[in-house]
Amino acid sequence: MAETEKLTNNTADTICAISTPHGTGGIAVARICGPDALRLTDSIWKGCSLASAQSHSAHLGTILDSNGMPLDQGVATVFRAPRSYTGEDTVELSVHGSIWIQRELLTSLCNAGCRLAEPGEFTRRAFMNGRLDLTEAEAVADMIASSSRAAHRVAINHLRGGFSKRLDDLRDQLLQLASLVELELDFSEEEVEFASRTQLRQLATELHAELTRLCRSFRTGAAIKQGIPVAIIGATNAGKSSLLNALVGDQRAIVSDIHGTTRDIVEDSAEIGDYLFRFLDTAGLRHTEDTIEQIGIERSRDAARRARIIMLVCDSTALPDAQALEIASECSDAHIILVANKCDLTESAAPGLSDAAIRLGATQVKISAKTGSGIEQLRQLLVEAVDSETSSDAELLVTNARQAQALSDAADSTSRVINGLESGLSGDFIAQDIRQTIHALNEVSGTITTPDILQNIFTRFCIGK
Amino acid sequence: MAETEKLTNNTADTICAISTPHGTGGIAVARICGPDALRLTDSIWKGCSLASAQSHSAHLGTILDSNGMPLDQGVATVFRAPRSYTGEDTVELSVHGSIWIQRELLTSLCNAGCRLAEPGEFTRRAFMNGRLDLTEAEAVADMIASSSRAAHRVAINHLRGGFSKRLDDLRDQLLQLASLVELELDFSEEEVEFASRTQLRQLATELHAELTRLCRSFRTGAAIKQGIPVAIIGATNAGKSSLLNALVGDQRAIVSDIHGTTRDIVEDSAEIGDYLFRFLDTAGLRHTEDTIEQIGIERSRDAARRARIIMLVCDSTALPDAQALEIASECSDAHIILVANKCDLTESAAPGLSDAAIRLGATQVKISAKTGSGIEQLRQLLVEAVDSETSSDAELLVTNARQAQALSDAADSTSRVINGLESGLSGDFIAQDIRQTIHALNEVSGTITTPDILQNIFTRFCIGK
Repeated sequence: MAETEKLTNNTADTICAISTPHGTGGIAVARICGPDALRLTDSIWKGCSLASAQSHSAHLGTILDSNGMPLDQGVATVFRAPRSYTGEDTVELSVHGSIWIQRELLTSLCNAGCRLAEPGEFTRRAFMNGRLDLTEAEAVADMIASSSRAAHRVAINHLRGGFSKRLDDLRDQLLQLASLVELELDFSEEEVEFASRTQLRQLATELHAELTRLCRSFRTGAAIKQGIPVAIIGATNAGKSSLLNALVGDQRAIVSDIHGTTRDIVEDSAEIGDYLFRFLDTAGLRHTEDTIEQIGIERSRDAARRARIIMLVCDSTALPDAQALEIASECSDAHIILVANKCDLTESAAPGLSDAAIRLGATQVKISAKTGSGIEQLRQLLVEAVDSETSSDAELLVTNARQAQALSDAADSTSRVINGLESGLSGDFIAQDIRQTIHALNEVSGTITTPDILQNIFTRFCIGK
Repeated sequence: MAETEKLTNNTADTICAISTPHGTGGIAVARICGPDALRLTDSIWKGCSLASAQSHSAHLGTILDSNGMPLDQGVATVFRAPRSYTGEDTVELSVHGSIWIQRELLTSLCNAGCRLAEPGEFTRRAFMNGRLDLTEAEAVADMIASSSRAAHRVAINHLRGGFSKRLDDLRDQLLQLASLVELELDFSEEEVEFASRTQLRQLATELHAELTRLCRSFRTGAAIKQGIPVAIIGATNAGKSSLLNALVGDQRAIVSDIHGTTRDIVEDSAEIGDYLFRFLDTAGLRHTEDTIEQIGIERSRDAARRARIIMLVCDSTALPDAQALEIASECSDAHIILVANKCDLTESAAPGLSDAAIRLGATQVKISAKTGSGIEQLRQLLVEAVDSETSSDAELLVTNARQAQALSDAADSTSRVINGLESGLSGDFIAQDIRQTIHALNEVSGTITTPDILQNIFTRFCIGK
């Protein structure tokens, strides 16, 4: 095992993995990448020599198993360094999508001298070889995990470098000013000012505003990436379950396919508009013989706390549930939608509902989960609640806790730069805070990393990417 | 819907599908195939023109969604007719393996003018365009479903045409003789014999032997393809479950991944040697207060009937279960292995076991599921039991019910040819039987098919193949 650990992440190795989803299908693709990719694949390949093949060319041939017997007929596509995903020589072998063949292919490749790739190792190599910066590498994982149009839009914009470019611009300007400030230190006895304090302050203020905006965007960004949490609270007889069915409809099957959906927390998910919503359906507030079950209250309160949106469901024919109103009123942070269900049973508005809506600052909607009336309007309200949180440049939402932390560090030190400038602090202190800001920005893009950070990022990838 | 039905299987359409396994992964591959494949893909593609690209060339570019917005960065590989799987122009688009991206990609392709492919439609086109014969097309599905070395070996040999070639040779010789016999009919008044009766009889006999062998191989072939059914019978206290655990070990996880494993019938599967074994674990024969539960007996009897191998498990320290012995004795067709468990508890052989083994024609083995003693020997016995059924030319096993039926028809009419020759039947009757044989052989290879037969074969394929 010590041997294996030593080899881990060694870029001198040629690595291989099945890059397509796990399971049986028409075809599966194995990726082989590293200095010996072409030669090693040739050794289990009957067809034209891949080592002498042009980059970006595909070839039909026979793949051999560990015993040199034909394993499959397949297509090998050659990507020569540096014109490949990782920047290294790469072969993609397309074979029949049998689990058995996939397993034997990996065995055969390992016998030939490949090592099984670790999760995210291809993307890690792409990063190490300067093909991607760290935010772009992280966007690759987000692209693969994206399960709504909005999550996908954020990820693809990060992947295309929109995010890094903006920060890099600001950092480069800052770096220039930092050099000037540091130059002053060499002439400290002469009290010169190479760096314009006005310009520096303007830049620091601009950067601080941008960083603060980005940090603030994290809560929304994370919700878009993971699904917007919506708590459904109300009394058991208010029709919460039928409302959920009406909202989610036949999308359930699609959404439940998505990898990583945590069934024990999320009751149900659905893509509405561009967003994925995670509905935290609570067991419901049950009143039994004038005592209210504490467990129901706690469950609803917990869901409400974790939610960005609270749907307070009540029966149009009855008074709104006092307990539910109280829980909703505790969550000033969330959007509250008062849903008056069973509007098919009564013409008049639910008694006391409008008052409650005003008190809570809530939007109000009359629906019937039974007839479907008002459901479209409710879906629209859910989408609008999220829209109102995302600015026009939604592509620059931060969705990643590591990036959010580094951005927050950068914002803090930028703030110290501004304060220093305002209080006329000496150049060496200001220079130090500028350096810290630059350091934090470099952490975002991965110009500065530690093996631990990289390990932490890439082990969350799937194998084969 | 009528419109859709009309379009179905229309080879003028350009079709698309995700060809990789369903789910999330590093990459997913969409296949676009048909007369307009290059032009249609170009319309959702930003990069070099695929319509002017060389065959077997790969290109990096941006894939657009239905709104013309960037959906993903990916690689398009172009295969020009006739040098593709189907023989038609084909593009393979490799994208990030997010379910959301896969879905949007198909939407975008359909908006551009593609139609979603039906199950097996790519292979069906390969067959229609003469790239594969029907046994080879069926072998593609078998390749994908294969879950053991033996099943895979049979499938790849079929795919490489070994099976069809042998039959085609015999059919061509028969066809030649048939023409000569038919020529005689034109000269019927002159009583000439253009076709040597000796030669014809020799050929028919050779063909009959081959067809009979192939028909007989079906039972073994089907078992190899689907997993060799092994019934485990014995009293509840004989240690059947721990035996199963010892045999199967940690392979369970791997095997249960395989698509199509029917959990309600198969208790557990394991690859041992080159074969996949399906262990039909019965609830066990329970004796309660001298009455034997009828349901347990029926379950064991049912499993034993369906099995190729019966493992009769008994406790070394007790007498073999009379009921289990009776059930095993009813299955003269199966290999019987008498497994004396708990050999760690006693030095001496189980009383009466050797007698029982001789009566049943069974192999006998002493094991301890607890210590693992004898388990390796038992695994060896299981493999040998199957080995003894497969001849040296295992590649020519029939694994397909449709082929087995057509081969059986061919064998019947060949047998009539031989009888006709022996009883000096007139040329016209013999010619008719020869034609029927040729017809049945053509059915095997798919030279003669009906739309119904094709529909039946290809709907069992996965989508994207």
